[in-house]
Order: sequence, then structure tokens, then C-alpha cells
Amino acid sequence: MNADNRGQQPQPETYVVGIDYGTLSGRAVVVRVSDGAELAAAEHPYTHAVLDRQLPDGTVLPPDWALQVPSDYIDVLRIAVPEAVARAGVRPEQVIGIGTDFTACTVLPVLADGTPLCELPEYTSRPHAYVKLWRHHAAQAQADRITDLAVERKEPWIKRYGGKISSEWEFAKALQLLEEDPEIYGRTERWIEAADWIVWRLSGTYLRNACTAGYKGQFQDGVYPSPEYLAALNPGFADFVTDKLEHPIGQLGDRAGGLTAEAAAWTGLPEGIAVCVGNVDAHVTAPAATAVEPGRMVAIMGTSTCHVMSSDQWAEVPGMCGVVDGGILPGLWGYEAGQSGVGDIFGWFVRTGFPASYAEEAAALGRDPHEHLTALAAEQAVGEHGLIALDWQSGNRSVLVDHDLSGVVVGLTLSTRPEDVYRALLEATAFGTRTIIETFTASGVPVEELIIAGGLTKNALLMQIYADVTRLPLGVIDSAQGPALGSAMHAAVAAGAYPDIRAAARAMGKARPAVYLPDPERAAAYDRLFAEYRLLHDYFGRGTNEVMHRLRRIRAEVSASS
Amino acid sequence: MNADNRGQQPQPETYVVGIDYGTLSGRAVVVRVSDGAELAAAEHPYTHAVLDRQLPDGTVLPPDWALQVPSDYIDVLRIAVPEAVARAGVRPEQVIGIGTDFTACTVLPVLADGTPLCELPEYTSRPHAYVKLWRHHAAQAQADRITDLAVERKEPWIKRYGGKISSEWEFAKALQLLEEDPEIYGRTERWIEAADWIVWRLSGTYLRNACTAGYKGQFQDGVYPSPEYLAALNPGFADFVTDKLEHPIGQLGDRAGGLTAEAAAWTGLPEGIAVCVGNVDAHVTAPAATAVEPGRMVAIMGTSTCHVMSSDQWAEVPGMCGVVDGGILPGLWGYEAGQSGVGDIFGWFVRTGFPASYAEEAAALGRDPHEHLTALAAEQAVGEHGLIALDWQSGNRSVLVDHDLSGVVVGLTLSTRPEDVYRALLEATAFGTRTIIETFTASGVPVEELIIAGGLTKNALLMQIYADVTRLPLGVIDSAQGPALGSAMHAAVAAGAYPDIRAAARAMGKARPAVYLPDPERAAAYDRLFAEYRLLHDYFGRGTNEVMHRLRRIRAEVSASS
Repeated sequence: MNADNRGQQPQPETYVVGIDYGTLSGRAVVVRVSDGAELAAAEHPYTHAVLDRQLPDGTVLPPDWALQVPSDYIDVLRIAVPEAVARAGVRPEQVIGIGTDFTACTVLPVLADGTPLCELPEYTSRPHAYVKLWRHHAAQAQADRITDLAVERKEPWIKRYGGKISSEWEFAKALQLLEEDPEIYGRTERWIEAADWIVWRLSGTYLRNACTAGYKGQFQDGVYPSPEYLAALNPGFADFVTDKLEHPIGQLGDRAGGLTAEAAAWTGLPEGIAVCVGNVDAHVTAPAATAVEPGRMVAIMGTSTCHVMSSDQWAEVPGMCGVVDGGILPGLWGYEAGQSGVGDIFGWFVRTGFPASYAEEAAALGRDPHEHLTALAAEQAVGEHGLIALDWQSGNRSVLVDHDLSGVVVGLTLSTRPEDVYRALLEATAFGTRTIIETFTASGVPVEELIIAGGLTKNALLMQIYADVTRLPLGVIDSAQGPALGSAMHAAVAAGAYPDIRAAARAMGKARPAVYLPDPERAAAYDRLFAEYRLLHDYFGRGTNEVMHRLRRIRAEVSASS
Repeated sequence: MNADNRGQQPQPETYVVGIDYGTLSGRAVVVRVSDGAELAAAEHPYTHAVLDRQLPDGTVLPPDWALQVPSDYIDVLRIAVPEAVARAGVRPEQVIGIGTDFTACTVLPVLADGTPLCELPEYTSRPHAYVKLWRHHAAQAQADRITDLAVERKEPWIKRYGGKISSEWEFAKALQLLEEDPEIYGRTERWIEAADWIVWRLSGTYLRNACTAGYKGQFQDGVYPSPEYLAALNPGFADFVTDKLEHPIGQLGDRAGGLTAEAAAWTGLPEGIAVCVGNVDAHVTAPAATAVEPGRMVAIMGTSTCHVMSSDQWAEVPGMCGVVDGGILPGLWGYEAGQSGVGDIFGWFVRTGFPASYAEEAAALGRDPHEHLTALAAEQAVGEHGLIALDWQSGNRSVLVDHDLSGVVVGLTLSTRPEDVYRALLEATAFGTRTIIETFTASGVPVEELIIAGGLTKNALLMQIYADVTRLPLGVIDSAQGPALGSAMHAAVAAGAYPDIRAAARAMGKARPAVYLPDPERAAAYDRLFAEYRLLHDYFGRGTNEVMHRLRRIRAEVSASS
């Protein structure tokens, strides 16, 4: 109890619920407002998971499709939320707000009242009526045209996205809808992010959150791409923004509305409590990891890595994913960058390069393959394996923005062992992060500290390599549920418990600062290896040798003709 | 029976014995003179195999050493030869000659009467008194000085060796002996190839064979490196040639002498039959595979590949191992090139990149790992895996002559499978062979046909890839004992059964011509991939990016300091 509270009665504790909508499940966490303590969590897997081969009725899907079923999201509210509250042992009336984050860009066509088109009986067999998950990659042709035309017309917003619009985003997916199923496109009254749809279902209010509107909807400086530009893409697309997309924007942490009676019944929470504007999993993690000041970059490291950072400076950072005013924290420019493959690359290596003899040894030692390779790799000094790898097995999201790049390993000898390649891959992803950091810093957005969130934080060797390679102190988020904690913090702000997300982050945020410090000797050794990485990075990635594009083209030709 | 023999009595069949001295054993084969039929073979493993950790008395050896014991070679004469003759069911008096081939450069110090210094009781504990096997690699420092000084002084012979003298050869190993054990060097009266020593023991005559004298002893145009050059290397080395090396040269296929009474007792063969001049395993395989005309290149493919070809043209082929007058066939220029890792690379991949799930599947199908990966790789079309590899895991022998280069794989994605990388490695070695062939052809020594010998001939996919990549008809030797057959053919010439090795090759050589023909469509597809290989080959191998050398240096520094 501090001086200001002297003589007052202690306030009863209050709680917020944060819900993190992931790719395969939703997780609800009950968090104490006063200090961010996570009392309990519950997870509910989506009944339909990801539809990437067929619809529930058996309708077959083409390659690269990835759909979801919106009612699965409601089930999370019905099942995971009451379960988490019960486990937490708090009374529902102690809960003052609810906040959500979602994968993005995950987007669906709905009627003006929010009804998903896939729930209309006449459209249950129509793939385009369903939710298009972030990793629906079948709109690449549309994305290419969107980028090319923007470059050709020198659209001002293209610079805000590192020069390239992704096939994952709102416009590419909508244009695919128009061109492949005009009837469904015609019935679409709102083209809405799932992040906003779930808030609409909770609060009865549709607000577009500032984060996805900016990063995924190309909403910049108060405007969307112009009707002229859209008409040039496809005459039928001219009115897309005005007819289906445009809608009032809600700032992150704002109250969207009060919990509806219907949603109160689903969740068991009191009607009328604050429902926060929607948000995105990576972005909401930044304040959860206490990164509310310029210079503190958060890297959410899992299968891929997302880098988010706020700054009071606007800058054109080459090859970033996007910069959005208020995109992470209201009042600051939010920057996003990413590496499209990180944990995925380590997983691929274990799947394809982990010999039987190693599997036996790992089993005898009670280690999983990653633990075993990590333990063996940890015995090495920097440079001992003699390898340099490029971490592009899943392409390069930043700073080259080229998904047709591919992975490289240089330096193989007859004595190269699996743990050598594994360590080289760990290091390659660290070099990729350093490349992003140096690009930010060189563009006038300095990075002074790195805070890591996500599943890979458990690999101490990897963390130390990142500290040594980047020469930055490495903090680690102190929560296994970073996004859900972040959503809960936004709910606390929406409920008025804190004046803004900065204050909430100070009280509720969870990060252990400077857990890993760069070792000067190893950092110097890595400087030499990083110089080699950059040389290869620029050679293969910046057009000197377009071999990766040619190999991919040859591969596509062969596959098409066979 | 042809017209010339009409009215004559049929001659009784005669036989020759060929002995192939390999790295771990000697193999004797009994061959019919009239048609080269191989009647029987017997193998005897060397009792002491390779001494690479300690001498027989326990004296510990430094790293990179590889020694042998000369009496093991005599045991092959005593055990394998009589066994082969007995199995063949021929009477010893039907055997008219004996021929041998050896690994090279495998070299030993002996007294003037041929006694190995390691057999003197006072020297049994002295490593330098033993046979230095071809893969004794502890004379690299001496080899580097030999090359550097030759380049500096513009010695004319250096061009005959692609610009680089190997640590495996006679001068490097002798200089190491001088500098590390001057006493043994002083007692050395002859520095002799094991190839010639065994012939000396069989025939009582010491002749230096033209093959090793040229390829391993830098004997060119009738002279060795000059005393001035040798003195500049080390003043004590000035008289090395005149004191210990120089000796009459025997041409390949010449009779060195008659089988001595002692050797007749060892082998059970008649005293006085022809003993042929010594030879080298790879080179003796050329006529065995019928490659006795210019344009027919033989590739002996095993852990590494040796390419041998004769030509009536002398040319300076960049990066070849050597060109020697009469080095393969008397009267023609013999060319040698090589790839330092081929089967070794596939073996390394199976050891380090063959996952447990694949091992299980292979076992269930009754396939060894190579068979399994080959079967999976064979299902692919050219270019389908999207990969390009450089085959330098064991360095590059030809045409870059750089053992500090290393392997590369480009084009890896999250869907790259083990069979994809395996196939890319098979292809990379084929691209390496095509690079050698194109270099020969561009230098004025055209290659018109490729005949493959060695253990890898059993992999039909690999053979077809070589035909498609090189666009050459691919013949395959029709003997599992190519070197021993070649030695037997040389014995037949030495015995006077044929006027020369060309005639012997026509009658006794064994190759199925054009077993694999290039497929025009696949060849065209490989042209595109080969262009990518050459681009990377030149980028990494010709100094544009010296990353491989720097990585190796870093690795060496790290190892030295740990």
C-alpha cells in the first residue's frame, strides 16, 4: 500500500479476460488488473481446424487454400472463457473487461448485420463464402497485380509496405473473391477482419481496429487506395472500399462497446462490461512484453518471427512489412517486420536431417530432437563448424520481401555433422534478425533492446546466439501466454482501469530485462560470420545471381508438365 | 579359328595373373590370354591394414599419417596368388606372366638391395622408416613450399600438374622425411614407389615405371626437378634425385624381368615367366576398359573419381592432375584428372542426412540407404527438386585444384526432402565431371566417349545422369576387377602374347559400349542446371567470393585456440 492510498479501504481485486485466437485454437486467460498476474488459462481447439483440402460438406479445395469456420470462434467464447474463469476461482462479477487478438489478415465476407455468408444455407458449398485464414496463399496472382500496378502508378502507400503487398492481405483476397466467385462478391456487404468480427459479436458494434486497417487494409493517412486505382485493377473492383470495406476506425485499447446479453450468456461474464477494439496477436504482444517506448523491439519467435516496434519517428524502412500510425500503440508509429521461416526451418531440419543414430542417442538421453541437437551444438565455439547458411527456406519477408528465395548452406565437408548444420541454421535466423535491426537503425529508427516472446524463448542457446549476433541485451517475456496477456491489458484500458496502454504495460507487462547479454568475444567472432552472411545475402537476394528464381521457375515448369 | 591358323594345331590356352594392390588388400585374378576371361580371383587383406594411429609396436602417430608394412604385400603373393590359380583350375605352367598395379603415390625408403628400412631392427619404432600410403597427408607444408617455389621460379614442369604439386607425391613425402627424421633420410638409398618395389621383389630388377615417375615423381621430358631448385627448398635436399630417386625407366607393358626363384616359391608359378613393369590402379584400368584410343575417357568412380585418357596431342589442360608421356599407354600422352569426393559425398549424406523414418522404410523394403534414396530420387524429373549443389565436400581436385573449397546446397525449402538433396549431390558430381570434360575439350583434347569403371557403376540412375549431363554415350567396364584385369593384360604384353597393350586391349579388354545414352530432353534440361552450377562454381571457386577459405581459416583458428 503506497502513500496515496493511506487511510483508504483496499479496493477489491478486479480481473480482465484476454482471448488469443490462434491458427488452430483459442486461448482464454484470466488476468489480475492490479499486477497482470495470470490466474488461469483454458484452450479450445477449433472443431474444423484449418480447411485446406475440403469444406465440411466435402467440396474439394484447390492448392494453397486455407479456410476457417466462424462458429468455431464463438465456441471459444462458450467453452474456453467460462473454463478459464472457473479455474481462476474468481467470481464473474469481478471481471471488468474482455479483450481479443486474432491472426491476421484473416478475413471473411458478411452481410450488413455481420452474418457470415458461409452460414447462409445456399452458400455452404461455396469456398469463397468462408473465412480466408492468414495463410490462404491462393491470391498470389492478384497480389502481384496489386503491387505492380501500385509501383507503376507510384501510389504513395506502397512505400509504407516495403514496396510489396502480400497475397495474405485484404485487397488480394477480396480481388480473388471478385474474380473467382462474383456472386458471393456481390452478396458481400462487409469484407471484415475476423479480429473485428469477433468484437462485433461480443459488443454488438462493428469498428475496424487501427492495426489491421493499416497493416492489412492499406489504410494510410486516413485514406484507402483510390477508386481509380481499384478500377484499373478490375473495373468491378472500383467501389470495393466504399461498398464493403470502409468503416469507422477504433484505436487499440478503445472500448468498442459493452458485452451483449448474448455474449454474456456465452461467456458467463456480466452484460455490459467493456469489450476492447480488436487487435493482432503479434502486435498485442508488444505491450505485454513492456515494449511501450521507442527503441524496444519485440520479436515473437515461433514457426516464423514477427518483429514489432513503436517509434515517434516516421521513416521509410526498406523491406519492412508495414508502418502504421497507431498500429501498435496509439500515438506512435508502429513498425512491423518479419522472418517467414524460423522455428519452421529448425523443424524441417529435424524432420529431414536427423539420422537414426541420433534419434537413438536422443531417446537414451531423454531428449527430444531439438534438445539433443541444441545440446550438441552448444558445445561448439563460434565458427567451429565452418558453415554459413541463409535462412530462406520459407522465403524472405524482410528486408528483401521475396518469397521465391530459398535456403543455402555453404562450407559443407565430409566431417560436417547434423549438429553443425543445425547450429548454422540457428545462427542464420539470428543473422536475419540482425539484418532487419541494422536496416531499421540505418533508416533512422534505432533499435536499442530486443525482447523475445514466443515458443522459441525456451531455447537458451538460441537466445544467447541472438544476443551475441545482435550485440543487444536480450529481454524475455515472462508469460507463456503473451498475446492473451496483451489482450487482457487492452481490456483493462478499455474498462478504464488504466489511462492508456503504457500505464497498463508498466503495471501488468511481464518481461525479464537483459536476461542474455552479448559476450564481447563471441560477438566479435560473429561479426566475421555476419559479414559472410551479408555477402551471400546480397549476392543471392539482390539480383547478382538470380539462381533461386530460376530454380523455382524450372521446378514450376517441371511440375506443370508432369 | 581364323584363316591364318588353318591347318595348324590349336595352341593350348595360356594364362596371366594380374594383382591389384589396393588400400586394404591385394586381389589376384587369373585371366585367359586369348580373350581376357577372368577364371578366378582371390583376395588377401593386409595384416596391418593402414597404420594411422600407431606403429605395430605401439609408437603413436601424429594426425594425417597413413603408413603400411611392406611384408603385407609379399603375403598377397604367397596367399592370394596360389589360391586364385587353384580356384581357376589351371596348371601353373600354363601361366606365362604376372602383372601388378598399386595405389600411388605409395612410397618407401629402402637400402640399395631393396630392403625396407622398417625391416631393420633398429628402425621398427621409427614412423619415417615405413611405407607412406597415398593418403598420408602430413606433408602438406612441404607440398605448399614445393608448389610455391616452383611457381616463383617458373619451373617448366609445374604446368604439367595443373599448377599444383600434391602432398601425396614423392617429393613432398621425401622432404618431410628429410626434415623430420634426417637419420632415416640419410640411410635411405632408394626412395621407391611400392609399385616398383613389388616388381623388384618379383623379378629381381628395379625399374621405375613411367607412370608413377611422371605423375608422382615430376619426371618430365627426361628430367627431374633440378638440384638448384631442390637446394632452394632445403640445402640438404639438393642431391635427392641423384642420390635416391633417379633410376632407369621401364615403359608400361615392358618385361621387367623373369620371376625369381624366391618369388616362384611364394606364388607357385614357374620361375622365369614374365614380370611386367609396375603400374597404377587407375591408369591400368584404362586399357582394361578398352580405352586405348584418343577421345575415350575412363572414369574410375568410387569414393573419389579418377579420370584417365590418352591422346596423341599434348596440351596444357588447366587444373588437371598431370600429363605424362607414356603415362597410360606407351607412345601417347596420358592425362589424369580427378574429383576428390564422389561416393564419399553420397556416403557422408547417408551417414548424416538419412532420417530414422527413412531407415525404417528402407528396411521394410529390403533396401540399403543408397538404394532407397536412389529409388526415390529416380521418380523425379530433372529440375523437380529445385536444388543445385557444389560437390566440394572433399575439396576440388580438378579443375580448380583447391582442397580448401567446400560443399554448397542452394534452393532448400521447407518441402525439400532427403531424396531431393541426394539427387542434387549425384547431379553435382556429374556436373563436376562435365566441367573436367569441357576443360579437356576446350584445351584441345576432345573427349568423345566416357567409360565408367569402379563400384558406382552399379547405380543405374547415377550412370544415366552422367550420360544426360555430359551428353556422351556411357560405356561400362564389364569386369568387377578392372585394375587386376588391366594388370593381367600388361602381363600378357610383357610375356609377348600381344605386340602391345592396344592389341591386348582389343582381345582382352572388357567394356559394354554405350550402355547409357543421353536422352535429348533430359540433356537439355540439365544444360540449364549446369549453367547454374558453373555460375556458382566460378563464383565460389575462382576468387569472386573467398568465403570458403575464410570459413576454413576461422575454423582452424577456433580449433587451435580451444
